[in-house]
Amino acid sequence: MTAPTRSTLALDIGGTKLATGVVATDGTVTGLRITPTRKEEGHAAVVRRLFDLAHDSFADAGQPHVDAVGISCGGPLDAEAGVVHRPLNLPDWDAVPLAALAAEEFGVPAHLVNDATAGMIAEHRHGIARGASDALYLTLSTGVGGGAIVGGRLHRGAAANGGEFGHIMVRPGGRLCTCGRRGCLEAYASGTSVALRARDALAASDETSLLSALETVRAEDVVAAAQSGDRLALSVWDETVEVIGQAVTDLVNTFEPEVVVLGGGVTRAGALLLDPVRAHVARWAMPPAAAATRIEFAALGDAVCVVGAAVHAADRSEEPSHA
Amino acid sequence: MTAPTRSTLALDIGGTKLATGVVATDGTVTGLRITPTRKEEGHAAVVRRLFDLAHDSFADAGQPHVDAVGISCGGPLDAEAGVVHRPLNLPDWDAVPLAALAAEEFGVPAHLVNDATAGMIAEHRHGIARGASDALYLTLSTGVGGGAIVGGRLHRGAAANGGEFGHIMVRPGGRLCTCGRRGCLEAYASGTSVALRARDALAASDETSLLSALETVRAEDVVAAAQSGDRLALSVWDETVEVIGQAVTDLVNTFEPEVVVLGGGVTRAGALLLDPVRAHVARWAMPPAAAATRIEFAALGDAVCVVGAAVHAADRSEEPSHA
Repeated sequence: MTAPTRSTLALDIGGTKLATGVVATDGTVTGLRITPTRKEEGHAAVVRRLFDLAHDSFADAGQPHVDAVGISCGGPLDAEAGVVHRPLNLPDWDAVPLAALAAEEFGVPAHLVNDATAGMIAEHRHGIARGASDALYLTLSTGVGGGAIVGGRLHRGAAANGGEFGHIMVRPGGRLCTCGRRGCLEAYASGTSVALRARDALAASDETSLLSALETVRAEDVVAAAQSGDRLALSVWDETVEVIGQAVTDLVNTFEPEVVVLGGGVTRAGALLLDPVRAHVARWAMPPAAAATRIEFAALGDAVCVVGAAVHAADRSEEPSHA
Repeated sequence: MTAPTRSTLALDIGGTKLATGVVATDGTVTGLRITPTRKEEGHAAVVRRLFDLAHDSFADAGQPHVDAVGISCGGPLDAEAGVVHRPLNLPDWDAVPLAALAAEEFGVPAHLVNDATAGMIAEHRHGIARGASDALYLTLSTGVGGGAIVGGRLHRGAAANGGEFGHIMVRPGGRLCTCGRRGCLEAYASGTSVALRARDALAASDETSLLSALETVRAEDVVAAAQSGDRLALSVWDETVEVIGQAVTDLVNTFEPEVVVLGGGVTRAGALLLDPVRAHVARWAMPPAAAATRIEFAALGDAVCVVGAAVHAADRSEEPSHA
């Protein structure tokens, strides 16, 4: 196998997993490595393991020529400065100069990007939203985030963050969100929230449930139990797809995109998620917007943010005015 | 006064009022005329009165040279084809070829645009959103609609409608909206809905209210009574500003605009509307987005859609490829 002539080393920091890989200009990923984040170890230890993982990816990929490093991380962060500010799902991270640390570690320019923005970039360049003029990306993961392509270009917005879709209000006065407000989408639709809601439902119920036997209930357990027809799991899951359908309908009505791409771990639920969300939008969005919009799963799977971080870094490295 | 060298005749059809005027390239409006829509007369009679009003505006303005006619109307409509499709607030209008009728009446090309889009265009070119790269327009009128500027350009979206902000979900399972769904912003925040909610509250209450004496309660009566400290009016108004604040917060979180412009008749409430909406966004939007966004009233008042229709028509007439 010939090494691609230009490659980017990409690092993705999630609340649950770290991923690294080498990405060629055509979007091909080699040396993909994934490991648990173990955020309880603190940011210094996590960053060290992340960098070691990236070195392993680089070796696995046959040590290609790498022009730049791309890093994807949950927000809020300052992409321009390359600094991570207290991501809601990485509590002890505060003002970590991740781009500078990576540039020093790997000896090439490093660029930081919000993970949901990375997902949008990846799916627009190499995935299911390829060629779309207007597209949205909604990641349902440890947290919930989003990104937007408008008029063929990445939407940055006045806050350079490009869209906090996780904080669309879906249940006024409802469950407490990580942001301090009640009723945000993230408080219902993140993997963390699905698990938490199932645990709360178990605690409040005398019903027998497939989940009762488990020591810790995770989002994937809820999905599996719902698939088996478990009543308690089904009621948690029905509310989950209801709020996601409602938020996606809001996004379809307000942005009128060609495609809404759903990514993140919660999409492993498959048709149990996609079918009711599509049905909700078809039933409740304004008819012209509903007719113009497709709802699809991300095509790039676990590598989506790795690919997005790489595309972002490669694009940034090509900008003549960028220091 | 010298007549401007290039002018556009502009017509605005609202659920409550018709407006016409002649708009110069610098945004100056002359011959502005406003009259009640009286939609119960049916579309043929309304269109006839609209065209007569426009002839009056043209005469008032000193019969300048007019290159094009711009028409603003509530959606849904097909702007490209110049056809109005059953606007929710003009029930008997169906497939009215308004642009073709106007072109025949006035002998110059005519261009149709959604009224909320017209508001956005006007405020971006000549109003409070001038020079903004990302801006939103939310009209709180007979109905509720919206428009967006993203990356300095008008956002059309895949449905060419550019954003149905009136159907953001604010109260799941709540009041029935004109669109058939329950709980949309429009079901609470349009002038029509404010009046209707006050009437419902009066019917359900034994309380004495300043509104009790009125034969018909209109939105402006609710605002006036709330300003006087009337308890029933205040409770209706508090819910109104709460849902508007919530929807604007969703828009600020998802679009991250520099400015959200509020227009339409409901903005005559002044500080009673603007202060609590600003406070809601400052308190509840994600901090970077809240810090980056201004919330302002439209600067162009009653002429906003007239100006927007004119700017749209003038821009379209300049497009070389346009037939």
